[in-house]
Amino acid sequence: MSRREVDVPSLVEQARAGSPRAVARLITLVENDHPALREVMAALAPHSGHAYVVGLTGSPGVGKSTSTSMLVSGLRGRGLRVGVLAVDPSSPFSGGALLGDRIRMTDHVLDPEVYIRSMASRGHLGGLSWSTPQALRVLDAAGCDVVLVETVGVGQSEVEIAGLADTTLVLLAPGMGDGVQAAKAGILEVGDVFVVNKADRDGADSTVREIRHMISLGDRTEPGLWRPPVLKTVADRHEGLDELLEALDKHREWMADGELHRRRVRRAGAEIEAIAVAQLRERMGVLGHGKDLETAAEQVVAGDTDPYAAADEVVSAL
Amino acid sequence: MSRREVDVPSLVEQARAGSPRAVARLITLVENDHPALREVMAALAPHSGHAYVVGLTGSPGVGKSTSTSMLVSGLRGRGLRVGVLAVDPSSPFSGGALLGDRIRMTDHVLDPEVYIRSMASRGHLGGLSWSTPQALRVLDAAGCDVVLVETVGVGQSEVEIAGLADTTLVLLAPGMGDGVQAAKAGILEVGDVFVVNKADRDGADSTVREIRHMISLGDRTEPGLWRPPVLKTVADRHEGLDELLEALDKHREWMADGELHRRRVRRAGAEIEAIAVAQLRERMGVLGHGKDLETAAEQVVAGDTDPYAAADEVVSAL
Repeated sequence: MSRREVDVPSLVEQARAGSPRAVARLITLVENDHPALREVMAALAPHSGHAYVVGLTGSPGVGKSTSTSMLVSGLRGRGLRVGVLAVDPSSPFSGGALLGDRIRMTDHVLDPEVYIRSMASRGHLGGLSWSTPQALRVLDAAGCDVVLVETVGVGQSEVEIAGLADTTLVLLAPGMGDGVQAAKAGILEVGDVFVVNKADRDGADSTVREIRHMISLGDRTEPGLWRPPVLKTVADRHEGLDELLEALDKHREWMADGELHRRRVRRAGAEIEAIAVAQLRERMGVLGHGKDLETAAEQVVAGDTDPYAAADEVVSAL
Repeated sequence: MSRREVDVPSLVEQARAGSPRAVARLITLVENDHPALREVMAALAPHSGHAYVVGLTGSPGVGKSTSTSMLVSGLRGRGLRVGVLAVDPSSPFSGGALLGDRIRMTDHVLDPEVYIRSMASRGHLGGLSWSTPQALRVLDAAGCDVVLVETVGVGQSEVEIAGLADTTLVLLAPGMGDGVQAAKAGILEVGDVFVVNKADRDGADSTVREIRHMISLGDRTEPGLWRPPVLKTVADRHEGLDELLEALDKHREWMADGELHRRRVRRAGAEIEAIAVAQLRERMGVLGHGKDLETAAEQVVAGDTDPYAAADEVVSAL
């Protein structure tokens, strides 16, 4: 076997047996869109569906990394195996690190039951990288009980993380007009649990009240619907950790009644669709390489045809 | 002819003759994805390519609307017909208004040579709506010499507007750490002209210096490349308008040497691709309606298959 070839079955076996190196290698394969990617995904499929996925999002400065670290401690205290995916250009975990390399999360660096990985956000300003769902599958098959996905909340990433996670945690900090603005703009709909971190600062209670008030105005107050709790934490002192774990448990219990399956089917559907679209896009040819698409574009610019008629031709040529 | 049918050739003829009502009607058709949309696009194609498209982007609070209004005045002073598309949830033009309805741009409301339209941003937080390029085609065919597209700069919308515009204007305000952060994050690459608005405030000169410095660090200093100017304006007093118009003229002249055509071909290509992908997506079936995609998603969740194998099946079923 040449050095370039990858023994996928053996890597997956090692990852399932708890080898951090094998997990790291598999995630690197999916991140680099390696030719073995399809084989990796096929090998992981039978071992998927165990991990519970918690998304953490919030504006820069609310304490996402500290909160992630606190949650890891809490989950490890329950004896659970934990994965962390940090999809955040500003995260201190940045740099393609697994278990120790350039990581500030020193509490957990030497814990063999914690996998930490930062993901590049590939052209999305703060958005989720294309390979995040695939990295999730690796951590899931490696026996993680919980995977925390941390992403900075700008633009669409809150919505993306909500599509990816079983439970979405929205972090805010006291007195951040930004946080509340963001909440107005869409975070309210995607959060399952709200946390006002840095709650020892002035204004924490009024931020809590504001968020509670906004939730009460939404359409989530019908009986049977999940009503997102609003908690307070001081993550660097682990204050509020028990209440947060309890809130996550409650949401997970609520989800178990059908909603978890629905979310996961929706998520898998979106993933399949994204892969299918990427395949079709590739067939169409990236502009500049694909002659047909470029010719069509020239014709549109010349006014000889319109984009819809041109699209028909491109599609029928597939 | 029933009331629901649309006489497209007559509407296009009226729009070309300068009827604001016909222009409004056509934009409404494209916004609502009306069945006549394809006929509208085909009818507009021969009349496209005249309008010069200027994109304006910037964080909330930098004065985008005031700057747009100032630019409209300047362009009208040259006797040009001007279109304005405000793709901005926070814009005072919000609400689907054309020429007068809920518009604060009072200076231009009664000017028959100015078309103003706000576009919903359809699920994108501040991003460009799907129908923006199509609305541009309507304004182009209606004889606009310049179309200003205003969008709030969050997340990916700066990049989107740069894809859409012939010249991209990035607005900043003095002392906004945010603005500079955004600049670092990607605005620097997309801006053709930078404007520090509210330049009568403290810190304007240092913001100008900061942006100039950052540009000098980039890869835009090679001979032959466009070097983005950094200007100062006080839009509500029209200060700096002449210099701004001059900078736009210069960029347009520079673009005329091949780059304008290249940008427009790239733009048309992206538009064709987006339409083609949407068509294919529709064939795949929106999740929840399309049985095949949902079945495939269920199988992925059950671990019976992986997303790649499922995507292959979905694509081959097209």
